[in-house]
Amino acid sequence: MTTLSPDVQSQLAAQGIELPSWAFGNSGTRFKVFTTPGTPRDPFEKIADAAEVNRVTALAPSVALHIPWDKVDDYAGLRSYAQDLGVELGTINSNTFQDDDYKFGALTHEDAAVRRKAIDHHLECIDIMDATGSRDLKIWLAEGSNYPGQADLRGRQDRLHESLQEIYARLTGEQRLVLEYKFFEPSFYHTDVPDWGTSYVQVSALGERALVCLDTGHHAPGTNIEFIVMQLLRLGKLGSFDFNSRFYADDDLIVGAADPFQLFRILFEVIRGGGLNNPDVAFMLDQCHNVEKKIPGQIRSVLNVQEMTARALLVDTDALRAAQIAGDVLAANAVFNDAFYTDVRPALAEWRESRGLPADPMAAFAASGYQEKIEAERVGGVQAGWGA
Amino acid sequence: MTTLSPDVQSQLAAQGIELPSWAFGNSGTRFKVFTTPGTPRDPFEKIADAAEVNRVTALAPSVALHIPWDKVDDYAGLRSYAQDLGVELGTINSNTFQDDDYKFGALTHEDAAVRRKAIDHHLECIDIMDATGSRDLKIWLAEGSNYPGQADLRGRQDRLHESLQEIYARLTGEQRLVLEYKFFEPSFYHTDVPDWGTSYVQVSALGERALVCLDTGHHAPGTNIEFIVMQLLRLGKLGSFDFNSRFYADDDLIVGAADPFQLFRILFEVIRGGGLNNPDVAFMLDQCHNVEKKIPGQIRSVLNVQEMTARALLVDTDALRAAQIAGDVLAANAVFNDAFYTDVRPALAEWRESRGLPADPMAAFAASGYQEKIEAERVGGVQAGWGA
Amino acid sequence: MTTLSPDVQSQLAAQGIELPSWAFGNSGTRFKVFTTPGTPRDPFEKIADAAEVNRVTALAPSVALHIPWDKVDDYAGLRSYAQDLGVELGTINSNTFQDDDYKFGALTHEDAAVRRKAIDHHLECIDIMDATGSRDLKIWLAEGSNYPGQADLRGRQDRLHESLQEIYARLTGEQRLVLEYKFFEPSFYHTDVPDWGTSYVQVSALGERALVCLDTGHHAPGTNIEFIVMQLLRLGKLGSFDFNSRFYADDDLIVGAADPFQLFRILFEVIRGGGLNNPDVAFMLDQCHNVEKKIPGQIRSVLNVQEMTARALLVDTDALRAAQIAGDVLAANAVFNDAFYTDVRPALAEWRESRGLPADPMAAFAASGYQEKIEAERVGGVQAGWGA
Amino acid sequence: MTTLSPDVQSQLAAQGIELPSWAFGNSGTRFKVFTTPGTPRDPFEKIADAAEVNRVTALAPSVALHIPWDKVDDYAGLRSYAQDLGVELGTINSNTFQDDDYKFGALTHEDAAVRRKAIDHHLECIDIMDATGSRDLKIWLAEGSNYPGQADLRGRQDRLHESLQEIYARLTGEQRLVLEYKFFEPSFYHTDVPDWGTSYVQVSALGERALVCLDTGHHAPGTNIEFIVMQLLRLGKLGSFDFNSRFYADDDLIVGAADPFQLFRILFEVIRGGGLNNPDVAFMLDQCHNVEKKIPGQIRSVLNVQEMTARALLVDTDALRAAQIAGDVLAANAVFNDAFYTDVRPALAEWRESRGLPADPMAAFAASGYQEKIEAERVGGVQAGWGA
Repeated sequence: MTTLSPDVQSQLAAQGIELPSWAFGNSGTRFKVFTTPGTPRDPFEKIADAAEVNRVTALAPSVALHIPWDKVDDYAGLRSYAQDLGVELGTINSNTFQDDDYKFGALTHEDAAVRRKAIDHHLECIDIMDATGSRDLKIWLAEGSNYPGQADLRGRQDRLHESLQEIYARLTGEQRLVLEYKFFEPSFYHTDVPDWGTSYVQVSALGERALVCLDTGHHAPGTNIEFIVMQLLRLGKLGSFDFNSRFYADDDLIVGAADPFQLFRILFEVIRGGGLNNPDVAFMLDQCHNVEKKIPGQIRSVLNVQEMTARALLVDTDALRAAQIAGDVLAANAVFNDAFYTDVRPALAEWRESRGLPADPMAAFAASGYQEKIEAERVGGVQAGWGA
Repeated sequence: MTTLSPDVQSQLAAQGIELPSWAFGNSGTRFKVFTTPGTPRDPFEKIADAAEVNRVTALAPSVALHIPWDKVDDYAGLRSYAQDLGVELGTINSNTFQDDDYKFGALTHEDAAVRRKAIDHHLECIDIMDATGSRDLKIWLAEGSNYPGQADLRGRQDRLHESLQEIYARLTGEQRLVLEYKFFEPSFYHTDVPDWGTSYVQVSALGERALVCLDTGHHAPGTNIEFIVMQLLRLGKLGSFDFNSRFYADDDLIVGAADPFQLFRILFEVIRGGGLNNPDVAFMLDQCHNVEKKIPGQIRSVLNVQEMTARALLVDTDALRAAQIAGDVLAANAVFNDAFYTDVRPALAEWRESRGLPADPMAAFAASGYQEKIEAERVGGVQAGWGA
Repeated sequence: MTTLSPDVQSQLAAQGIELPSWAFGNSGTRFKVFTTPGTPRDPFEKIADAAEVNRVTALAPSVALHIPWDKVDDYAGLRSYAQDLGVELGTINSNTFQDDDYKFGALTHEDAAVRRKAIDHHLECIDIMDATGSRDLKIWLAEGSNYPGQADLRGRQDRLHESLQEIYARLTGEQRLVLEYKFFEPSFYHTDVPDWGTSYVQVSALGERALVCLDTGHHAPGTNIEFIVMQLLRLGKLGSFDFNSRFYADDDLIVGAADPFQLFRILFEVIRGGGLNNPDVAFMLDQCHNVEKKIPGQIRSVLNVQEMTARALLVDTDALRAAQIAGDVLAANAVFNDAFYTDVRPALAEWRESRGLPADPMAAFAASGYQEKIEAERVGGVQAGWGA
Repeated sequence: MTTLSPDVQSQLAAQGIELPSWAFGNSGTRFKVFTTPGTPRDPFEKIADAAEVNRVTALAPSVALHIPWDKVDDYAGLRSYAQDLGVELGTINSNTFQDDDYKFGALTHEDAAVRRKAIDHHLECIDIMDATGSRDLKIWLAEGSNYPGQADLRGRQDRLHESLQEIYARLTGEQRLVLEYKFFEPSFYHTDVPDWGTSYVQVSALGERALVCLDTGHHAPGTNIEFIVMQLLRLGKLGSFDFNSRFYADDDLIVGAADPFQLFRILFEVIRGGGLNNPDVAFMLDQCHNVEKKIPGQIRSVLNVQEMTARALLVDTDALRAAQIAGDVLAANAVFNDAFYTDVRPALAEWRESRGLPADPMAAFAASGYQEKIEAERVGGVQAGWGA
């Protein structure tokens, strides 16, 4: 059986992947959102579910919140509730896509009053960060247009800069702004932050604590994502990851489910570029569990990241460099793939047990009775979803 | 000014494009459905709006219904309501994607009871066709899976055949079944009818009155759609079109909005293959007006089809054939493009007026006061959308 | 260590993957063809190299020829030369893309004389099949057009049918015609056989011994290839595979190199549909070794197929079916992926040794001195490439 | 008939599109390069052909050279030859993809000696610029890798920077370096400059006279190219365009042939961003005439750009802005499309005649006898292609 070196073990022990609170609520497509028994009705129940993922994996030490979906009266109370369950509150995600005012934009809107409203929403998010102790404000903008001519692309870019500047100026101390890019959807002609280049130039114009967020599902077909990871790490501008996977568009499937080799290549570049267990690079899931169970879906996801990280750490980098320098294509590829094809699962199971964790977190959760308990208890009320 | 020959005029005069009732209701993305004042609350109001499109264009003589969204107690009453407004009830569209039972399939489901329910739904649709006088039952299946291993692809295909067979057997007289294919969404790993080949083999196994429905937004990036049009016409299996346009995925934008030259090429192959004003080939819109006004969105759409049909009819096919036979690439392309670049709009405006229609249907609708009237009148109630 | 059951062993022992003679010649891109020392100068040297792949793997019992690249005066002599080296001559591939007459088509050409020439070329290929004992005539057509209007899509389709009919009529006994499809390249607007649907309708119009060839690199971005494998097996029309892999277009990389999980899914559907070790389904490589060494490139390729077949054979199909029937998405996916993530390489190495084969065929070839020998011997003459 | 305002006329009169010398040589695909009678055998003959394009259009005042394909002993002589024919020598294009040493990279190569050679090649190109009076050195790098692990992505990026720095340092006066990016090909896993973001960060690290070159065929499927045009103009980093068009990959078809509406949108953003007739933004063709005649192919191309520029100049920008500000999607789109659908060809023909140019440059060239003359005269010798 493959064994994990002390160095690999210490790298894995330090790994943490933030969970999105909204992954525990209902999600779906424009055609249908299927509901599930036991779905949380409020942020406290979401955090309880997230803590369960961490309990069986020790991989998910924090939970990202989405405002306004996770608004509460008492953030200090929410924070101590989380801490009692062993997790921290993490990134604050803003939302400028669900208000009628934002039909034609938010931070980029032609109308200064709408921009004002959207900026104020972000300032409120930073207030919440102050209360929750969160470091990162993550901004994903749904802004764009559906028809050529509908929008003035250039003016929107300039207004985006101005709006972000005002938000950025409000950050204090260690707080950071991370700007996500996305190829398309919900806009179908142009998107105001469609690619890493645009996110990069926008955050570079703000300052050092503004960085790029890379969502693995937000690229054109065929895009070499690990190249972008490499480039952003090289530029010191990779602030965070939103992990998920896709076959087609922004499918938001379980990370590693669609193309495990791609996840391996991404994590290899993370390690190569010094991004693993680097506090400057945050790792987070951003997925939709449309048809699968949500809590085990999140457990499967963090395990996928852990397993693939272990494989990426196994690459014999000396042998790889030697083959690269020699121009031996097949040898270099073989060294690289050897790590990918190594079955790290038994060693990881053993290592987990050595740390007092379940060898098989999926089975441990299934056996815990937690799912049955929430299905029984969470009756009545309104299940959380993307709208609440 | 370009003039329209008598033959072109008679072809254009015969053109009819069916409108989807649901285009008048609200639609959106998984992120947000924006609402609009004046949106219909029931099938009667949808038909009234559709009739308005026909009133100013004479291009939209029928309205497709979606069951259960357009269920009424009295279909005969709905039909005569439509006829009073100058339109017919057209294609009946089934829906097997919005019931919790269909989470893992409908006509393909592992569970015979779910398949029974889905088949029965289609039999009910045929009952409605009997009442509305509709010829076509259009089946778009949202069925598929999100994760490798989740579903038995082969078994589903066999069950799909069996289910369709039972539905097909219920058709009578001139009734037809048209089976739509779609590349992906709402399923993100496999879709049970993902391409024209699958639709073709499934309908061919049923019989002569089963045909393929081609939705212009349901293909992989880069697909040459006019080639498929040519092939299905050649095989005698092109039953109907769902027109719309897209830049990325199934964006459901206004037909011709994203790539007008593609629409031209499609209509050229329709004409080349004898599909224009051929009763066997139904033309229909299937679009979402997420950010634009719905009634003018539909008017714009049928005008786009009309204008592009006029251009495609202008192709000098003798000169084209001569250049093709001679292998003169640039000459053939020039003949083809000459028609595309011809501005047919003034001639069409004049021709419309000569038929007692508004020269500019968009302006005529805007001036009609209809929009203001429905915004004032349709207050209260629940606006129609994809769920109702 | 994972062990291979007797059943898995017997399946693997029966596996054979045909090698393309042209993989041993030089290949490249439109920008540059890099040459390599030791490259064969004639069909005999190509076969010698192919036999070397089989010698160390026992996986490659036959070699496909390409006419005219592999024309020889004495096919019986070539056949016995191959047999002496332990391999058979396999599929005959025609070529209608390298003659100036074929600039605007071959089997589809407007000019009957050009079609005659192209048909005659295929009849000559069948003569060669008679001499070599080959069963399959594989037809890949480079035909298409670069500009809208350049070609009459419909007429070409009809002419294609007529041409194929004449070729098909010449087949005798067990001989078969397999028709390959390709999304695009070398034509950039339309391709006459662009998708499996077109290949399927064309071969179905010929008869039972006409089948589809699926090249894994010939699809639009995002296409679910295993679905097509399933469908063609279901229809009894999957004649052969051309294995390779791609990140972008028809990259022709080593099979399994770009997306190993996709190869696993394809092989799972092959097994599911009864296509493994089924004489009706031929497995073949069709790759370009542009930058890597050619013989080890082919060894790596057949090993990739073998290793992934072993993984696909490990899927616990009973557990998978149970989870599928139960609608347990995560369990089904877990059963499926468990096989993929299993490291079969140690067991395969042991099994190879038990059969008198090298445990590590790549290392065995490197140690054999064969490469050094051909580099020393094959000096002078013209290296084989796509043009010779 | 649409008329062209004096302002539009003066904009069009100032327009110039550089021609690539290599467009007059033979080009093709990896499968076949078809030859054409009359193809130039040397740089002088290429320039003569290019001058012919300018003679009938007055749109192509300069010719780009490719080194070493266009190496001559006497650049001053070549320059005066060109000037005698009414054209200037333009951009110098380097070539680091056709030497065996560059199999694994050039400016990024692991081996300092190969990098030295590649840098020296660029320094030689700058020497040639000094002799030809060229302003721009255009660098397109074919560098990348085919297999994961083959190359150290990060190290290559750093070496690329160092190499470019040395080249940039050699520029004098008004000379500029423009760095082209390309999604893929000839490398099929990673490309060292794959997107505008990478080109932007590399040229920004050099200095003010280093800029990005945007080739319209070098993007992932679905990419909104006009957005990138807008962004690069906004950043002051759009150095030049390589115009062509594509349906699939880097098809290198005639500009505007595949998606005329896209070309319109691109030119609209050029105008919107101040890029038209701005000396800082160079316009150039980069196309392959594989199946069409080369000289008329170039004439057609510059006319396509001219016609589409005229349409883009017709956009009623006041009305457009008003509709954008009002959030009137359909009105804004209508204003935009109105210009696109306007047939500017008659007005352009008339305007050309008023300037002493042929109304129909394609017909004028056909009638000139030039093609017949070169077919008769250019017999013997080696036709120019990508390798010579």
